[in-house]
Amino acid sequence: MRNTADVSTLETLHDPDRRGFASDNYAGIHPEVLAALAAANGGHQISYGEDDYTARLQAVFAHHFGEGVAAFPVFNGTGANVLSLLSVLPRWGAVVCAETAHINTDENAAPERVGGLKLLTVPTPEGKLTPELVDRQAWGWGDEHRAQPLAVSITQSTELGTVYSVDEVRALADHAHERGMVLHMDGARLANAAASLDVPLRTFTRDAGVDVLSFGGTKNGLMFGEAVVVLNPTLDQAQAALPYLRKMTMQLASKMRFVSAQLLALMDGDLWLESARHANAMAARLAAGVVDLPGVRVTRPVQANAVFAVLDRAVADRLRARFRFYDWNQATGEVRWMCAFDTTAADVDAFLQALREELG
Amino acid sequence: MRNTADVSTLETLHDPDRRGFASDNYAGIHPEVLAALAAANGGHQISYGEDDYTARLQAVFAHHFGEGVAAFPVFNGTGANVLSLLSVLPRWGAVVCAETAHINTDENAAPERVGGLKLLTVPTPEGKLTPELVDRQAWGWGDEHRAQPLAVSITQSTELGTVYSVDEVRALADHAHERGMVLHMDGARLANAAASLDVPLRTFTRDAGVDVLSFGGTKNGLMFGEAVVVLNPTLDQAQAALPYLRKMTMQLASKMRFVSAQLLALMDGDLWLESARHANAMAARLAAGVVDLPGVRVTRPVQANAVFAVLDRAVADRLRARFRFYDWNQATGEVRWMCAFDTTAADVDAFLQALREELG
Amino acid sequence: MRNTADVSTLETLHDPDRRGFASDNYAGIHPEVLAALAAANGGHQISYGEDDYTARLQAVFAHHFGEGVAAFPVFNGTGANVLSLLSVLPRWGAVVCAETAHINTDENAAPERVGGLKLLTVPTPEGKLTPELVDRQAWGWGDEHRAQPLAVSITQSTELGTVYSVDEVRALADHAHERGMVLHMDGARLANAAASLDVPLRTFTRDAGVDVLSFGGTKNGLMFGEAVVVLNPTLDQAQAALPYLRKMTMQLASKMRFVSAQLLALMDGDLWLESARHANAMAARLAAGVVDLPGVRVTRPVQANAVFAVLDRAVADRLRARFRFYDWNQATGEVRWMCAFDTTAADVDAFLQALREELG
Amino acid sequence: MRNTADVSTLETLHDPDRRGFASDNYAGIHPEVLAALAAANGGHQISYGEDDYTARLQAVFAHHFGEGVAAFPVFNGTGANVLSLLSVLPRWGAVVCAETAHINTDENAAPERVGGLKLLTVPTPEGKLTPELVDRQAWGWGDEHRAQPLAVSITQSTELGTVYSVDEVRALADHAHERGMVLHMDGARLANAAASLDVPLRTFTRDAGVDVLSFGGTKNGLMFGEAVVVLNPTLDQAQAALPYLRKMTMQLASKMRFVSAQLLALMDGDLWLESARHANAMAARLAAGVVDLPGVRVTRPVQANAVFAVLDRAVADRLRARFRFYDWNQATGEVRWMCAFDTTAADVDAFLQALREELG
Repeated sequence: MRNTADVSTLETLHDPDRRGFASDNYAGIHPEVLAALAAANGGHQISYGEDDYTARLQAVFAHHFGEGVAAFPVFNGTGANVLSLLSVLPRWGAVVCAETAHINTDENAAPERVGGLKLLTVPTPEGKLTPELVDRQAWGWGDEHRAQPLAVSITQSTELGTVYSVDEVRALADHAHERGMVLHMDGARLANAAASLDVPLRTFTRDAGVDVLSFGGTKNGLMFGEAVVVLNPTLDQAQAALPYLRKMTMQLASKMRFVSAQLLALMDGDLWLESARHANAMAARLAAGVVDLPGVRVTRPVQANAVFAVLDRAVADRLRARFRFYDWNQATGEVRWMCAFDTTAADVDAFLQALREELG
Repeated sequence: MRNTADVSTLETLHDPDRRGFASDNYAGIHPEVLAALAAANGGHQISYGEDDYTARLQAVFAHHFGEGVAAFPVFNGTGANVLSLLSVLPRWGAVVCAETAHINTDENAAPERVGGLKLLTVPTPEGKLTPELVDRQAWGWGDEHRAQPLAVSITQSTELGTVYSVDEVRALADHAHERGMVLHMDGARLANAAASLDVPLRTFTRDAGVDVLSFGGTKNGLMFGEAVVVLNPTLDQAQAALPYLRKMTMQLASKMRFVSAQLLALMDGDLWLESARHANAMAARLAAGVVDLPGVRVTRPVQANAVFAVLDRAVADRLRARFRFYDWNQATGEVRWMCAFDTTAADVDAFLQALREELG
Repeated sequence: MRNTADVSTLETLHDPDRRGFASDNYAGIHPEVLAALAAANGGHQISYGEDDYTARLQAVFAHHFGEGVAAFPVFNGTGANVLSLLSVLPRWGAVVCAETAHINTDENAAPERVGGLKLLTVPTPEGKLTPELVDRQAWGWGDEHRAQPLAVSITQSTELGTVYSVDEVRALADHAHERGMVLHMDGARLANAAASLDVPLRTFTRDAGVDVLSFGGTKNGLMFGEAVVVLNPTLDQAQAALPYLRKMTMQLASKMRFVSAQLLALMDGDLWLESARHANAMAARLAAGVVDLPGVRVTRPVQANAVFAVLDRAVADRLRARFRFYDWNQATGEVRWMCAFDTTAADVDAFLQALREELG
Repeated sequence: MRNTADVSTLETLHDPDRRGFASDNYAGIHPEVLAALAAANGGHQISYGEDDYTARLQAVFAHHFGEGVAAFPVFNGTGANVLSLLSVLPRWGAVVCAETAHINTDENAAPERVGGLKLLTVPTPEGKLTPELVDRQAWGWGDEHRAQPLAVSITQSTELGTVYSVDEVRALADHAHERGMVLHMDGARLANAAASLDVPLRTFTRDAGVDVLSFGGTKNGLMFGEAVVVLNPTLDQAQAALPYLRKMTMQLASKMRFVSAQLLALMDGDLWLESARHANAMAARLAAGVVDLPGVRVTRPVQANAVFAVLDRAVADRLRARFRFYDWNQATGEVRWMCAFDTTAADVDAFLQALREELG
């Protein structure tokens, strides 16, 4: 192999000390995950999922979610969501979800365009569905003119930084099941929810009745990697379908060992939980720092790693020049501040100091 | 951050010294690529492609392919192919390709299912189209009953280990353009072709008339990462379409810096060429070692990193127990031996020794 | 040709004197339309639209809508809507429409499933969009994560029996065009709107800025037959696309002369207007008959051929046993009474009498 | 209702005495079918298939095909084919068919674009598959990279005017079933095949193992109307799926009574058979008239209502100026002459006379 002594490509092009509050996917790779990539490297491994890391991953997910689950690593969250839903829905299926659901707002209609699915949306307070809200769209079964509502999809933690309680999930699952619907959970930030609820992953997913799960890794320190997890072992048709669906929707990684190795780094131990706890704690610290600030109003319960607030637009714009973050709702002036596994207490404190300065 | 001193997840689960001849995607990550991931890590970078590495990538691709090209990193080769074709075809478009094309045989109909495209296939000698072969399917424009043949897709190097000459590509491009068709190149093994032809990448792609390119990285030492490259700068509609198409087909990486950093490690320097040259040389060494062996017949010109051969099935099966490889055609007993960036001369020699032993 | 003297298949299986108020597509074929089918029969005509009737249809539609329009006959209303939208939208397009729009509620997601489109819905009073309501969904252009809102779709007359005024259409068209969006009109009941507004078809469609129109014939007395009409002559790409789109979405009739002949029977003369006026008049008669009835509350402005009302569920159910009609909203007890081209004054009077009887 | 005494729209715009040999869908509506439309007219009938004619149709199809079949009327042949295949295939399904199959050549990729299906084509002699030919594509089950071959589709009579024998169909059905595949028959010209084989419809369809059938009416004298017929009663999932699939693919007629009434006119009696026998006889007469003509070579067995022949291109062009027909293969000079239910012996004789004149 060639001499790599002087390789310009190894240059770091960005400032590795700069962090903001824009998104947990602005963060990079957790060092342990990077180390796991190195550990999984070298030699040849069967491609497309018949490798030792993907095999091990099944055991690790069974540890977390119970026997009989099947995990299908995929590239990204949109892929996990669309595949989860396709695996449990017929071609005429529709999905009841919150208007603010990621599948509705941020996937450029991949569920519709790739999956041919219909989303039946409901406005919600704080991004959370309830059985009553589900019922606004869950009707019309047997009517061929109506896209058939056969799944409910909830996001945990939600796009608004809130968390469904175990009982809330169970109520939705029972409600869905009584109507012949399945319950999907978009768990792009599942670990943050677990850290918030302080219960095992299984408690608020499989044991609460969730049928199929988009398990998120990227926002919790992976380079990228998510998994579709069929939690309900009676959904054997979904398990049988997923290999084909994953390939045909272009979500099958050839060198899958490196997706699985990342997921193992996260899940075969407690890195997932520690990282999520840390991110949540940073959001709590941030929220605590602004709650009494005149001119800032926290708008949502801070239950995971996001803080939503309203503040003067000019202040927000000056602050943004120092720490990047996003507007959530330009009409109302609501902004979103997101913490990640690598957000430090010093980052938060510097941000708070800057905010105080800009508020004058 | 937590103490990582004793992290079980860093375990290597496989034998990192074992290599076979099954596929170039059985290989892992080139060490320089892994180092590039580390170099790109740390701090926050804007997600979804507005990072410094993706910006740099544009300059590097312009260096290789000329000014005006646009590169869109994606996850995998199927994604690159489908997106390339979608970017240049209307909803009623069809693609003329070889029967053996990867888009036809190995993508579980992703072009049809995700893209709504029709493939018009032609049997070919050695996996290579010619203008005459294209004409078997390139007809019927204006007839609304026929899927409109508006693109030709060729693979370089081909699925059969052969390589189009510069003149052959140019002849196809001219032929396509005269008929109002665009020329797509599936370059999953583009570097192997460049190494084989011993000309710059630009010579047999853009300068020969290729309009849009699936640029392959994974088979040449990346963890994963490919790019759609719009080579023809007059295809500004394709450039404008690709961000939307990439997102809606679930090929947009949130932490894109890590796809781009890998591609940079490959292309910002000559790693791409050295790795491909090496893989090709190993295939040539393997072919040279079997060409005079009684009981083995090499069936295709060995022009890149693959050797195809026919041998006794029982011999093949015993050999396969020692070094993994794939049947290409069970009916004829043809097998495929694939070399990768990490195949060593010792690997080849040990394989040849084993083959001689099994042949008795 | 065989003797047809005693052909059992000519039997009438239903009661041809029974009519209800369920839907204008419960009605049959207007006698003139049936006569036109006979007149177009006999001999051979080029299939798939190159016949004399389809040619004549272009002239007739040009008479109604002005020079430069192109009409594409299709089978049904869902086909007309999906094709209209596909013809003017890229693959990443989205459509702003009322929650109650037929494309959203009654097409089993054909726009999403066949067209890959995304519907961005807005709750509306009386089924009518306004520029302000459009703005709730018309934003986010250039953001690849959001399905791009590039069309507004309105229904005229609406699913709630209301009618957009000319000024209301024009305001929506101007609003859309200023934002780079096109305006689609679902004209399944276009004639009823024209009769209601008492202006030429052109006035509230093309001249008011509508770009593409689903022209409805079935609900106005055809056996079946609708047309996509490209009203904006600068949309030459849409005109060029429609032949391919129509074929690939299975909406191309082989013996198209019989679709066109029906549309001619309706439009080459004033049958369309007389039938619509009659249906509207019957709805007005019905509304007038219930407006003062205790126990019945008309819930929507009666501007076309539908009457919506709330009444006691038990009364409604007894009435329904005598004259078929649909619940509109089971939760509120709202029902819909629909008049058709063949509804007679006697039908209305008998219905009113029955209603009075059931109300006690 | 208005006075229809002087209605210009009833004009006949074409020459009703002119017939050619271009296609059986150049012909119009059989008079008995037109009469059936009139008989089904008047009054209100429940839309979307809950009418008396569609109910009766089930009994008539049970008469022809046996108890337990379900018939789903649709608009056109492409619709019938795509729906038939969708009803029996999962999202990852592929269909083995002849290269010349209508679904492959003349539907602008509707199976791929609307259905997301993959066609695996095989070159055939005379348009007919055999078990051996099926095997060229029927392999790779369980391999997620390959679109899964789960159906075989054959056309009866074929696009080349040939007819599968009962034994040939049964051999294909057995072969398919042994491999877990279903057998679909595109019966756009099913009646012509029945007339040719001189056996009941059931004998070479359901009893020979066909699982799902596209039943054709349009080419046999309907205005338009086809049906998907699920022949295998164990395919209850297909039966349950079809109402939804039909609606979402835009093939559900609102005034379905008029599709069903046409199909009844054809099938509730022997009009279907008489018309097909007549068309076949006219083709036989035509073939008999040319078989000894110097300069004309009949190229395919004449088993249904089509004659294929090669003749001098200049002769063909002069002849075409007098009687319209299509080139089948411009490269070889092969033309197709098609007879319909309304082709007369005098038409054939005049054509033969013209041919002799042009041959000089």
